[in-house]
Amino acid sequence: MAAKIGQLMDEKLGKQKNDVLPVLKDLSKIILTEGKKFNVCEKAAKDLPEIAGNALLSFSSSGNTSKLRPLKVGVLFSGGPASGGHNVVVGLYDAVKEMDPKSEVIGFMNGPDGLLKADGKILSKEDIDSVRNQGGFYLLGTSRTKFEKESDMAKCSETIKKFDLDGLLIIGGDDSNTNAAHLANHLKKDGSKAVVVGIPKTIDGDLAYLPYLQTSFGFYTAAMTYSEMVGNICRDLPSSRKIWHFVKLMGRSASWITLETAFQTQPNVALIGEEIKEKKMTLSQVIDMVADVIEKRYKAGKKYGIVLIPEGIVEFIPEIKSLISSINKAIVNIGNDHFIKMHINDRKEKVLVELIQEHERLFIELPHTVQNGLLSGLDPHGNVQVSQIASDVLIMDLVWDRLSQRGIKLTTQTHFYGYDGRCGYPTWFDATYTYNLGRAASILVANSKAGYMVTVNNINGSFDKWQAQAIPLAGMMAVEERKGKDCLVISKYLVNLNSKAFKEFEKNRDKWAIEDSYLCPGPVQFFGPDELVKSRSITMTLNA
Amino acid sequence: MAAKIGQLMDEKLGKQKNDVLPVLKDLSKIILTEGKKFNVCEKAAKDLPEIAGNALLSFSSSGNTSKLRPLKVGVLFSGGPASGGHNVVVGLYDAVKEMDPKSEVIGFMNGPDGLLKADGKILSKEDIDSVRNQGGFYLLGTSRTKFEKESDMAKCSETIKKFDLDGLLIIGGDDSNTNAAHLANHLKKDGSKAVVVGIPKTIDGDLAYLPYLQTSFGFYTAAMTYSEMVGNICRDLPSSRKIWHFVKLMGRSASWITLETAFQTQPNVALIGEEIKEKKMTLSQVIDMVADVIEKRYKAGKKYGIVLIPEGIVEFIPEIKSLISSINKAIVNIGNDHFIKMHINDRKEKVLVELIQEHERLFIELPHTVQNGLLSGLDPHGNVQVSQIASDVLIMDLVWDRLSQRGIKLTTQTHFYGYDGRCGYPTWFDATYTYNLGRAASILVANSKAGYMVTVNNINGSFDKWQAQAIPLAGMMAVEERKGKDCLVISKYLVNLNSKAFKEFEKNRDKWAIEDSYLCPGPVQFFGPDELVKSRSITMTLNA
Repeated sequence: MAAKIGQLMDEKLGKQKNDVLPVLKDLSKIILTEGKKFNVCEKAAKDLPEIAGNALLSFSSSGNTSKLRPLKVGVLFSGGPASGGHNVVVGLYDAVKEMDPKSEVIGFMNGPDGLLKADGKILSKEDIDSVRNQGGFYLLGTSRTKFEKESDMAKCSETIKKFDLDGLLIIGGDDSNTNAAHLANHLKKDGSKAVVVGIPKTIDGDLAYLPYLQTSFGFYTAAMTYSEMVGNICRDLPSSRKIWHFVKLMGRSASWITLETAFQTQPNVALIGEEIKEKKMTLSQVIDMVADVIEKRYKAGKKYGIVLIPEGIVEFIPEIKSLISSINKAIVNIGNDHFIKMHINDRKEKVLVELIQEHERLFIELPHTVQNGLLSGLDPHGNVQVSQIASDVLIMDLVWDRLSQRGIKLTTQTHFYGYDGRCGYPTWFDATYTYNLGRAASILVANSKAGYMVTVNNINGSFDKWQAQAIPLAGMMAVEERKGKDCLVISKYLVNLNSKAFKEFEKNRDKWAIEDSYLCPGPVQFFGPDELVKSRSITMTLNA
Repeated sequence: MAAKIGQLMDEKLGKQKNDVLPVLKDLSKIILTEGKKFNVCEKAAKDLPEIAGNALLSFSSSGNTSKLRPLKVGVLFSGGPASGGHNVVVGLYDAVKEMDPKSEVIGFMNGPDGLLKADGKILSKEDIDSVRNQGGFYLLGTSRTKFEKESDMAKCSETIKKFDLDGLLIIGGDDSNTNAAHLANHLKKDGSKAVVVGIPKTIDGDLAYLPYLQTSFGFYTAAMTYSEMVGNICRDLPSSRKIWHFVKLMGRSASWITLETAFQTQPNVALIGEEIKEKKMTLSQVIDMVADVIEKRYKAGKKYGIVLIPEGIVEFIPEIKSLISSINKAIVNIGNDHFIKMHINDRKEKVLVELIQEHERLFIELPHTVQNGLLSGLDPHGNVQVSQIASDVLIMDLVWDRLSQRGIKLTTQTHFYGYDGRCGYPTWFDATYTYNLGRAASILVANSKAGYMVTVNNINGSFDKWQAQAIPLAGMMAVEERKGKDCLVISKYLVNLNSKAFKEFEKNRDKWAIEDSYLCPGPVQFFGPDELVKSRSITMTLNA
């Protein structure tokens, strides 16, 4: 039998040595220097007094060697998986063992749940070697649990005391790092020796804080995985010359993945949710925008093309957002438990009665599958399940109808890429970034620096220019309304229409719409020429 | 801005030199030796008298050098694209130019249509260099047109005469090679100097004729592209631990792609259409087979997993096949033109009236989207559009219902991989196989050998053991019923339950079902270690 490629890849990549930032090589010589003090908002000053005064920390190498002590550091994954997560743990492990062989890394199982339930295990060399440069979060698992109540904080404290931890790494997105800030403050107030360090993870690309935090890990691997598939379809277009492909891409509210994929593949249309919101476009205008491109191409004899659609688009179309909110209220009035037991036709009837005429009209015009998605009941947070709305089908069906009215018949196909890009082997960029994040985090723990997010700066440039840094979590936070309450959170980094990346896209999209400018990036390479292997995100480098 | 990976990949792979089979290196020294005579069926002897007497041809190198003349060779793509197609053209071009710089390769545009319409162009060095090792069929385009009428054959003859061709390469699947055989016979009967050579293409893997033709090109690239995505999901399973993924894979009636992907990723369930047919399973039995695995895992605390579903599965379930046939008749009775103008609810009502009770019951139990697919009207050949049936949704919804009855609630997600695997950069295997097919085909043209399919044998072994061969097309053909008529065709190569590949799968699947034996092959590598880059299909090597 031929070799199983998965076994070979695991082995070859598992043995590949990770590049270490020069400044992080000799751990005994690293000194942390305080830089800029961050302004914190009023609520942060009040709610997070213990960590609100933190200043930016930079890492450098001194001539002197300091004695390092053994550390016990906990680590957990939070939220959806992203490629590179394992390497954070590996980098942390390698570093604390270099500091002192008696050091220990404790992995908490199933995300924040493991911390609440004191479900942790000391990671062995075998555990660590089995996940070097491997995708996924399977070593520990993950969950979306939040520490919201005081009692949760107390349970975390107890676990941290039980395991005698010097520090805890929370690997997560904006919500998880908001959590990390609160826990850091809580522990410091409690007099715990353990410091909490946040690690910026999310494939969505919506966790950044320029110029300090340029990107979260996992974004580039996910975007390149989707770009491979989209690029392959782009090659198919002028080959079979007869299909319009509507591709939905993961990324929740942010359109960064769609934008990066657009740069990598040059599709005919890429919808950017933030633009639609900013320009207050109606659903009908969005449909026209797509239909006009298709019609123009049709008249030029091109009956094929590709449209990229960010997963969260429906939330950006004001009238749909308003419809969703009305349906939300209607379901609450009916009672969700009762509602989800009804037959779909009855659900529809009951909801329509509650809607104002304008919303009723809009709802009836939506494709069947989208109607069903909107009627699938509320999620545990009491919201209509936006992720259940097939936005690719929504756009495709409405565009099809619009063009049909113009006498144009299309052959169409939908795709959704999302889960398939969260756990691939990390690109060199993500593997290297995360390995060094883990190493740098160990220094924060060794120096008892609480309430920081560790980052690497200048990652758009060549590797020898990369700089480890630590940003005060409290400084990244702002007050936002969540479920009608003012909350202190890390804001989502969304596509700004004035950003260089968006401007570059805007400059090119009319050309991409009509000409066949398609690119096919192909599968991520791990062993080839440096230009391929050590590549970086286009959106990130443009925005740097 | 960071480099666009697609541009770099095109350039790097475009400059990569292809390996040439030792026997095909010096074209002036190649001799063709007749081997085994193939038994042809009665209808082939009658319908294809000009090529029915062909014997197997093997390629070897003689001590003598023969003078080579300039050749004019046409080439066209037929059917869906498959990775490696461009390299057939490149291999042909390089070879005929080596024979004599005055040689020409004429590309016919948009598949068989280009031949019918005499739409051909002389390919330049720039044309050829732009597609070396590139995926897709975009240099020429493709179509699914068949030459069925005598008048089509006459038009082809005319074009061939007009371009003064010595030969024509038809790059296609089973149907296209059936066409190639008929055209070869027609031309020879006509006294044309042009010989037709068939090139075995299809991602489905259903064009093979053991031991002579081991696989079609494009199969391995497609299977590895899908395996990358499936493998990434496999890594996600034990990371997020909460979703059951139902993945539909392209491959029409054959389950080879599903089987190869199963070997590469070791999923919990992989349905094999041919097994379901052979064992005459009902839809309910298929659903139970999947539901039982999910229930077992659920009871072991594993609420996640993955199910692979071959695209054509519905055709293999006898009761569904019978239902489809009844719906087909019903729509014919109603009149398709009239039918497709009706509202979907009216279509359903009209069709239900025409069905026998057993079919009515089965139809009503199907998910909404599947009902709609079955009611989408007839295709141009007068058949229910089986490809419109969302078999992933069908299986998923019914499994969900079945488990719900057993008190188990699932979180599910569907995926469909197909179009995204037809046009990727060809793996080393497909790029090398096709380049040598193109070269070998030039020898058949130079020697005026009509009615052959060119192949490379021993491709499961190391490259130095690969052997160029030519198989008589007539010998590959058999009589099959098509639309109620006896037709002479190349039979589809489907999964045989006695094949070594199926036996190996059968031996392992119970283990894969319950244990997490997942593998993640990752993206195809073009520059890494030989074991990765020069890998071969597992099903092909098992069956060799």
